Amino acid sequence: MIKIRWEADMGKTNHLTKNHLLWIMITQIEHIVGQAFAHELRKIGLTREKWAVIHELVYLGGESTPYRLSKRFIYEPHSISALLSRMEREGFILKTKDLAKKNMVRVSLTDKSKELYPKGIEICQELFTDIMGDIPEGDGIGFMESVARLRDYALVSAAKRKNLTPFKYE
Amino acid sequence: MIKIRWEADMGKTNHLTKNHLLWIMITQIEHIVGQAFAHELRKIGLTREKWAVIHELVYLGGESTPYRLSKRFIYEPHSISALLSRMEREGFILKTKDLAKKNMVRVSLTDKSKELYPKGIEICQELFTDIMGDIPEGDGIGFMESVARLRDYALVSAAKRKNLTPFKYE
Repeated sequence: MIKIRWEADMGKTNHLTKNHLLWIMITQIEHIVGQAFAHELRKIGLTREKWAVIHELVYLGGESTPYRLSKRFIYEPHSISALLSRMEREGFILKTKDLAKKNMVRVSLTDKSKELYPKGIEICQELFTDIMGDIPEGDGIGFMESVARLRDYALVSAAKRKNLTPFKYE
Repeated sequence: MIKIRWEADMGKTNHLTKNHLLWIMITQIEHIVGQAFAHELRKIGLTREKWAVIHELVYLGGESTPYRLSKRFIYEPHSISALLSRMEREGFILKTKDLAKKNMVRVSLTDKSKELYPKGIEICQELFTDIMGDIPEGDGIGFMESVARLRDYALVSAAKRKNLTPFKYE
């Protein structure tokens, strides 16, 4: 009897809601592209998270504070903090005390990460052009705007108080 | 001198390519929604990966083989294999030898996971309606199709030989 009920229930759930299917596809894209991206970054000694910190710091002019970074990042503050400590030990960043405000730590790029940056950008450009090259030029902008709206709405719903870096595209 | 060159280089890279920005936004959505989803699933004793296996098995009629699952999943076969062993130990699935083909293992849902399934679906529906609720009904389908195309193109580029489950939406 349980089996019959179960099979009857299943029939009703083969169809997903639109939002559910959208979520499945987003995780699929993230997983497929993310694996390829991590693979390429490993060749220059980076992980996706470390690359994100370097990329963000470049955008912020080469230095920032852990607090500012954690605001502009989707990662949680405690993850950022652990990540920055690891990156300091590995010579990717320098942490220095601010001379004016003694309790403020400043984070800056080292020569090592400055040298890695153009290599990372090259990896990004090749990979993302290759893997995501099927978005028609004309449709592209509308599609981008829909994805951006989805991202912003998700942020609000999850009550994340963030001011993500307002990257622009060419 | 190095510093000046560095700063000059940075100016050129503040603008990202469209594909690069799209990728950043997809990882942001995946991270934000994924955290909220994992949080909800933990309440019923599941991870995102375990939920994915249960959901997929339901779609396949309640049972399948590790090979077939790994084809329909973005995860790599070795991850699937380890995941299935863990789920068997924890009572979420049963692994049985096929009576006709002795070397073939069949994977099926247990009563425990059948009971969890409707709870998981409820979590999905609430979360994804809530978090992704800002896609206008009219634009929705075109947007979905663009995301699906991106997913399929990424699969081909990454040379993943998969036949993902062709979920349909209501």
